[in-house]
Amino acid sequence: MKYMYWLLIFIPITLVARFGLQLNDGLVFLFCCFGIVPLAAVLGDSTEQISLYTGPKIGGFLNATMGNVPELLICGFAVQAGMYSLVLASLAGSILGNILLVMGMSIFIGGLKYKFLPFNKNITHNNFTLLGFAAFSIVVPFFFKYSGGGGITEHSLSNFSLALAVIMIVLYLLGLIFSLITHRDIFDDEDEDEDGEKEAPEWSFKKSLSVMIGATVCVAVMSEILVHTVEGAAEQFGLGEAFIGIILIPLLGNVAEHASAIMMAVKGKLNISIEIAVGSSMQIAMFVTPLMVILSALLGNTMEYVYTPMELLGIIISIVIAATVFMDHKVNWLEGAELIAAYIILGGAFLVFGIG
Amino acid sequence: MKYMYWLLIFIPITLVARFGLQLNDGLVFLFCCFGIVPLAAVLGDSTEQISLYTGPKIGGFLNATMGNVPELLICGFAVQAGMYSLVLASLAGSILGNILLVMGMSIFIGGLKYKFLPFNKNITHNNFTLLGFAAFSIVVPFFFKYSGGGGITEHSLSNFSLALAVIMIVLYLLGLIFSLITHRDIFDDEDEDEDGEKEAPEWSFKKSLSVMIGATVCVAVMSEILVHTVEGAAEQFGLGEAFIGIILIPLLGNVAEHASAIMMAVKGKLNISIEIAVGSSMQIAMFVTPLMVILSALLGNTMEYVYTPMELLGIIISIVIAATVFMDHKVNWLEGAELIAAYIILGGAFLVFGIG
Amino acid sequence: MKYMYWLLIFIPITLVARFGLQLNDGLVFLFCCFGIVPLAAVLGDSTEQISLYTGPKIGGFLNATMGNVPELLICGFAVQAGMYSLVLASLAGSILGNILLVMGMSIFIGGLKYKFLPFNKNITHNNFTLLGFAAFSIVVPFFFKYSGGGGITEHSLSNFSLALAVIMIVLYLLGLIFSLITHRDIFDDEDEDEDGEKEAPEWSFKKSLSVMIGATVCVAVMSEILVHTVEGAAEQFGLGEAFIGIILIPLLGNVAEHASAIMMAVKGKLNISIEIAVGSSMQIAMFVTPLMVILSALLGNTMEYVYTPMELLGIIISIVIAATVFMDHKVNWLEGAELIAAYIILGGAFLVFGIG
Repeated sequence: MKYMYWLLIFIPITLVARFGLQLNDGLVFLFCCFGIVPLAAVLGDSTEQISLYTGPKIGGFLNATMGNVPELLICGFAVQAGMYSLVLASLAGSILGNILLVMGMSIFIGGLKYKFLPFNKNITHNNFTLLGFAAFSIVVPFFFKYSGGGGITEHSLSNFSLALAVIMIVLYLLGLIFSLITHRDIFDDEDEDEDGEKEAPEWSFKKSLSVMIGATVCVAVMSEILVHTVEGAAEQFGLGEAFIGIILIPLLGNVAEHASAIMMAVKGKLNISIEIAVGSSMQIAMFVTPLMVILSALLGNTMEYVYTPMELLGIIISIVIAATVFMDHKVNWLEGAELIAAYIILGGAFLVFGIG
Repeated sequence: MKYMYWLLIFIPITLVARFGLQLNDGLVFLFCCFGIVPLAAVLGDSTEQISLYTGPKIGGFLNATMGNVPELLICGFAVQAGMYSLVLASLAGSILGNILLVMGMSIFIGGLKYKFLPFNKNITHNNFTLLGFAAFSIVVPFFFKYSGGGGITEHSLSNFSLALAVIMIVLYLLGLIFSLITHRDIFDDEDEDEDGEKEAPEWSFKKSLSVMIGATVCVAVMSEILVHTVEGAAEQFGLGEAFIGIILIPLLGNVAEHASAIMMAVKGKLNISIEIAVGSSMQIAMFVTPLMVILSALLGNTMEYVYTPMELLGIIISIVIAATVFMDHKVNWLEGAELIAAYIILGGAFLVFGIG
Repeated sequence: MKYMYWLLIFIPITLVARFGLQLNDGLVFLFCCFGIVPLAAVLGDSTEQISLYTGPKIGGFLNATMGNVPELLICGFAVQAGMYSLVLASLAGSILGNILLVMGMSIFIGGLKYKFLPFNKNITHNNFTLLGFAAFSIVVPFFFKYSGGGGITEHSLSNFSLALAVIMIVLYLLGLIFSLITHRDIFDDEDEDEDGEKEAPEWSFKKSLSVMIGATVCVAVMSEILVHTVEGAAEQFGLGEAFIGIILIPLLGNVAEHASAIMMAVKGKLNISIEIAVGSSMQIAMFVTPLMVILSALLGNTMEYVYTPMELLGIIISIVIAATVFMDHKVNWLEGAELIAAYIILGGAFLVFGIG
């Protein structure tokens, strides 16, 4: 991923363009996009280094979490700006992109090399049970809103959204206790020890930590600029809300992860690809999104936890299709192709028809 | 469960309150609730004794069936009184409560003691295939009603409801032939023989049978009073139909079963917990509910076999979530926590928004 | 199947009735129905002979494909005549009939003889993953149309339908590459070699090929007549569109296959039954239907790839129920009975309520 580091030059360019030259929103947004991509890579590299000190358990969790920092910050600033529909669209898009596109590419490319890609079924079962829970949870307020029961008021829906968000985060935390403490041994990735030798860290612990913190601060700054220029840019370039929310923003924070997931699959280490793609989706669904609802409540105007019909459909279909693919405990290139095809159909539908 | 027997005192209290003192509906209803709980326990204990004479097969079936006698009688009297929406709500609530709350508590508490709770996968496969069939069956008339096809009339919907009920009961009976006759050996609970010794009956067969019959008669009387006081009580205490139908009535007939299911899980006998919780739900879905439709037809006014959107959603979500949990053939505390969380979300939604 | 050959007499009868005597549509339609049934049998027999020369792989694929030739031709002529709703109804009916009725009868009757019917789980996994993909794909345009997003126009829906059809056919072709080339060994039917001896072909290769081509030409002629008399016949006999589309047309082209599938299950060769019933449904869903959309586009008036709500529900329920049945890798008579019961409920609903 080293070549991506050259793109870091876009961070000062963005800052100068925004605050120095005060260029128009479209240009600043563009620079900002280029700047976030390498920052995601830096975040990934530094957490990988740290995980060599902390061991694979904590490391894997750190990796998934830091990988979602860009989404977290972008959405956090968007919540602050009251752009609720953008928040939900980009989180839905992140789930779609990770589960269908990233996982699909990993399986497809890995599957061209290996006849079957085996994986630790406890990892997928754990992730998909929580993802299934997330899917179910978001159906409930949606259904109540659209089936138009008598008891629906804006107030009751806000309260329910907040309560739902709290329950989801509690369950997510219980899931962490499960996978990091009480049942940590069932997630052991045997394929990581394949080559018998232990990887040595390249950076010192102190350096890794400093880089990670520095990169996070930079991501925060870039995210803030991104959110405040996105509307101007959309108008200027004629991009619809659907394209920006469902496709563009999810892609920005994930380019580095996408590359890692595919690389790992090619090396036959599918468990790591699954953690990156599916585990990250699960974290978005069960932690980042509820957190945004809670954040909006703290800021005084609770976001309704109600996706548009098409976003909901997209999320549910992604989870069901991917769960079906993983059901028989080994995957092949055709199943990768199916996931990619599903992404093309859903993504295309959003572009043609809007976010519904 | 012995301490519950003290509550039997509420049976004469109810009778005196209703027919002697002619107290108001609210108070009678309350006494009646307390009276039904120990009767369910007595029914459970007597069938357990009988099953020690008849062997585990017939016994298990008797146990599940007698456990549903309170629901059957309460709903029967409600059908007679034309309170159709209460009938469907309480049967939906019974399925939710059993599959999510009882099963969830059993798995969660059992899972705190055992790392994994193994079970006989034939039992869950059989139950969930029939539950899945039930879910699918109730979607059809619902969908036809709400998608508003041209051929829908009240008359055609009544006829279809009746035909559907008959088909479901036929399939339920075929399921009994399957599990009690042609394939009985695949359901052998190995965990029951764990301690190597056979349990000796405490009561004589005659005593067990007499107690069972007596308890059933008492349940019938209490149910009749319950149904005729529920509306007055709801008004008096300010309880919504949703709370009574979805939460309260299902709880009344099931307290004893809930306790047994959890106790069995703690002893590591998860198969019995599954029979009590999931098997009982299946019987409600495939036998008790269709029977109510047929009963209403015999009484001259066929009940439409159409749940409200939220009831339908609740039933389907319960079945799908629980099926996902059981899919990998061993369960753990986190999965129990998920089921409980799902119950809280769905139950909360009914309380906040009504039965939709 | 030999006795069916006597029905071939209805081919000249139909031709004389239509072009010579110019009888009314009802009578011609009836003759035509009787004529198509034995042609399906001839097609089946000739491809079976050919497969003895080409080997089981190519043979199995040929068999499934030629079995769908009647549907393909009937629907092709219906597309040409602009009868789009008939096309989608009969393809939905074909999926329902194959997956629920044919597979159900095969499993039920086979299951009365064998306690469990084992099968090659790779065959079902492959078929159901693609069927699941088909189910998902048809939900997307449906949902966009009915949820009424702002971006829906007739034009955008046509374009999307066409693109969707192309993606589905590409994935179907990838599936063929997967099962005929890259992963052909995982589909080996061990049960075919049960009796240890190889079947010798009864017909020469040349004769088999000539018969197959001749039968296809006859089917084409009959299909053309069928499509042009169906409306007159429906009016004359008082049959609804639902009955003709969902029940009658799917039955006509499949009688011979139905008989084969059940016969194979009775011989314990369930893999072949699955290929005939489920594999054929998959081909209808992933190849024949998209092909009709593309054909309509070539003819200048793109068919909207949008089923009616009830057709969609029927297709999805069929796939989900059947997938559940096959999930535990062995099937029994009760599961066959469930599939049949599901067919009766869905078929009955279409007859009572219309195609929605």
